[in-house]
Amino acid sequence: MRIPLDRQDSVPLYEQVQDYLRRHIVSGQLAPNTRLPATRKLAKELGVSRITIQNAYANLESEGLIANREGSGAYVLPPVQMATAVTDSPSHQWPLWQQALAATGSEQPASSPTLPPHPDIISFTGVGDPRHFPVKDFQKSLQAVLRQEGSAVLEYGKLGAGYLPLRETVAHILASQGIQTYPPNVLITTGSQQALALICQVLLKPGDVILVEKPTYNLALNLFRVLGLEIVGVPVNEDGLIVEQLEPLLQRHHPRLLYTIPNFQNPSGVCLSGTRRRQLIALAERYNLPILEDDFVGDLRYNGRSQPAIKALDPRGHVVYVGTFSKILMPGLRLGYVVAEGPLFDRLVQLKQVTDLNTSPLIQQAVNDYVSVGRYQAHLRRSIRRYRQRRDAMLAALKQYLPPEVAVVAPQGGLFIWLRLPAPLSAVALRPLAAAAGVVYAPGSWFFPQADEGEAYLRLNFAVQTPDRIAEGVRRLGGVVWNEIASGK
Amino acid sequence: MRIPLDRQDSVPLYEQVQDYLRRHIVSGQLAPNTRLPATRKLAKELGVSRITIQNAYANLESEGLIANREGSGAYVLPPVQMATAVTDSPSHQWPLWQQALAATGSEQPASSPTLPPHPDIISFTGVGDPRHFPVKDFQKSLQAVLRQEGSAVLEYGKLGAGYLPLRETVAHILASQGIQTYPPNVLITTGSQQALALICQVLLKPGDVILVEKPTYNLALNLFRVLGLEIVGVPVNEDGLIVEQLEPLLQRHHPRLLYTIPNFQNPSGVCLSGTRRRQLIALAERYNLPILEDDFVGDLRYNGRSQPAIKALDPRGHVVYVGTFSKILMPGLRLGYVVAEGPLFDRLVQLKQVTDLNTSPLIQQAVNDYVSVGRYQAHLRRSIRRYRQRRDAMLAALKQYLPPEVAVVAPQGGLFIWLRLPAPLSAVALRPLAAAAGVVYAPGSWFFPQADEGEAYLRLNFAVQTPDRIAEGVRRLGGVVWNEIASGK
Repeated sequence: MRIPLDRQDSVPLYEQVQDYLRRHIVSGQLAPNTRLPATRKLAKELGVSRITIQNAYANLESEGLIANREGSGAYVLPPVQMATAVTDSPSHQWPLWQQALAATGSEQPASSPTLPPHPDIISFTGVGDPRHFPVKDFQKSLQAVLRQEGSAVLEYGKLGAGYLPLRETVAHILASQGIQTYPPNVLITTGSQQALALICQVLLKPGDVILVEKPTYNLALNLFRVLGLEIVGVPVNEDGLIVEQLEPLLQRHHPRLLYTIPNFQNPSGVCLSGTRRRQLIALAERYNLPILEDDFVGDLRYNGRSQPAIKALDPRGHVVYVGTFSKILMPGLRLGYVVAEGPLFDRLVQLKQVTDLNTSPLIQQAVNDYVSVGRYQAHLRRSIRRYRQRRDAMLAALKQYLPPEVAVVAPQGGLFIWLRLPAPLSAVALRPLAAAAGVVYAPGSWFFPQADEGEAYLRLNFAVQTPDRIAEGVRRLGGVVWNEIASGK
Repeated sequence: MRIPLDRQDSVPLYEQVQDYLRRHIVSGQLAPNTRLPATRKLAKELGVSRITIQNAYANLESEGLIANREGSGAYVLPPVQMATAVTDSPSHQWPLWQQALAATGSEQPASSPTLPPHPDIISFTGVGDPRHFPVKDFQKSLQAVLRQEGSAVLEYGKLGAGYLPLRETVAHILASQGIQTYPPNVLITTGSQQALALICQVLLKPGDVILVEKPTYNLALNLFRVLGLEIVGVPVNEDGLIVEQLEPLLQRHHPRLLYTIPNFQNPSGVCLSGTRRRQLIALAERYNLPILEDDFVGDLRYNGRSQPAIKALDPRGHVVYVGTFSKILMPGLRLGYVVAEGPLFDRLVQLKQVTDLNTSPLIQQAVNDYVSVGRYQAHLRRSIRRYRQRRDAMLAALKQYLPPEVAVVAPQGGLFIWLRLPAPLSAVALRPLAAAAGVVYAPGSWFFPQADEGEAYLRLNFAVQTPDRIAEGVRRLGGVVWNEIASGK
């Protein structure tokens, strides 16, 4: 079986295999009951690892497209079986408590329809370019820690706020960014997502109001929805969250938390101005409002002057600060941190401990080994150089290929460019057309508390593709947008 | 500085260094403002890794015993500063919402007083013998995955229920233990603790009643307390949870969940009888009661016949099953799993995703690589051989060295032996005396919803020490118990 693979593509190889097979199964080119090649054989043919093929097959199996028959390999399922293979028989009666769960479930975030296949997709989603993750260096750190510490690093580790040398390293990195903190105020978490979840679970209960920027990070929105919070959006402009609109909302909704991304905001790319940061602290003080500052890529600045973190302006402990190693190192490590003080810090540590004891000591120590030898800073400098070039390439391509009616805000850092299409165009409606033309983006509706407010917007990640691919992807996107405008929609 | 280190001891080297320094600081043998040796220098002197020393120093710093002065190394703090070094100045005024948090905090699990130092502690706490964790083999798996998958394994990975091949591996292992399940019903979690937390958060809200065995796993009790659940205990005898006493409790308390550890229960070591397992399922059906089955070491059986998992007896989806790789592989990996169906499974996956996106793909793939080559089964067989010997050594030593009034139940597997001291002896009161004699155990009070119910009990882990050390540790314990009885307390 000849499956064309593009090793330069940011789409992992197993997904390329899986997409190819899915297309051929769904289209009928691979007939029901066809036996798929053995994983070992196909891996050898394609010159990839066996895990890659196993992964692709496993995903197809979970999608109900193929089945593993014990001892005789994987087969394409007939369409009828496809639908029922992974669901339970309709006659199955769940216990009452299960039925109640189904009835009272929190609102599910809308899932996106499957996009049409294209042989050469250029994706502007994701968080960073995996080809530049420092795998080799990190592997050395892993080996060093396992060699030096042996089995000790694979024991439970001390329960508590995390591996102390790593907490010191975090405090040092933050000090270099103007945030004075101490290791006893740093809590290590499983990615910044866990940090957000712990903070919300300590500070809010279902039905409480949380203020968010409009638009804001989609996975934070999903979290707030699943926790049953009432989400109130505050609009953003080129200076970030419009703090001037905050006071009436504070008086009306009595929110228990404000969630903000002040640097290179996800998805809009804007930074909160220094004046507004100070206004925010004053409001927090006046209205007894905790502020959750998510600084996910604050150190990826390409030009312009950085503002102090809101946390650095906070003398009283109103701000809880969340950061991560994911965006500039390796997201798969799942390592983030919280800086907080006082009773809040104690409650966060307590909740972290009972919910998963601790984050893998092996990963914590390996990252600390990696970071403490200065490689983190070096990797950061390389990333800034590379991503600045890509941002510039994307801005140039947008200018060249998109109609002038499309509004573009040039970000001074981060990963994202945020576009607004001219009325009546919808980024949601355009998405399958773009995918058919070979370009994928994140539709703006993902980032709004009320999805329909985001119809006109879309988010492009410029960090995941090379300048050439950026130009080609934007050219494809431009073609689709021009077409839509011409067709008078 | 000559610090005596015992490389055969299960106490990690950094803790040995730290304990030595702590004793010398608190006793005044290391005077205030004494400069400690540079980490590199001390590491070289002691022939240990620098991380070991850094770790010890960092812990002492967080305890407020030493301070790092920028550029000039670590110093012993004067006693006055020790007390205030890590706390905030008393004049500091927290924001109102912080004060409210402090006032409404969930009940903190009681922390244990520091034990007196001893130059050669034999600890019967912990979960397994770290010297036998398969570090080398696991390192090979880590390397294989990083070599084959490269940076792909360090990306976010697919959100969802976990790495599919690992979910298939879990389903295979469970099938070999009589639990028929399918990969789509397996959710990978960050250790079994996260599994417990997710299940409780989906099924219960603060104030709801949870039924637990009395005694039960202390970290589960901590979780239930922090979540604000009302905990009702059901007594255990040599056939496990006394199911006969359950019905009146079900009628009176309308619990939302029953938490049970049916195999080699933690801490009592007993197994739930087959009859009671069937009765439990019938009650679950009659009273619409979800059952949380925590099978933390079900496969560590040394003699006797195993009973089917409660999950295997459950046709309707009343039972949610939790397992872990931690106890027989490496606890520091933080890898566990849930088997569940229907609406519950969907809600668990949803909550897992929003609370930490996913568990490290690197760890998931490396464990899958390790387990799928049959090394898991081989390691399990070796562990069973080794731990059976240790159990027998401890039972023999208990018979030899402890007064016959101490009640001992011989477990057929697992990690723990549970003792009851004769009245009026208290295992809590005995603990510092035992520690002074060089032996440490887990006092029974940790394992009861109401701590004072556990005064007479203590838990010994027989898996963490060699037979020689077990004999010596039990001899020391016996000396303390005989003494107490003789002194007529």
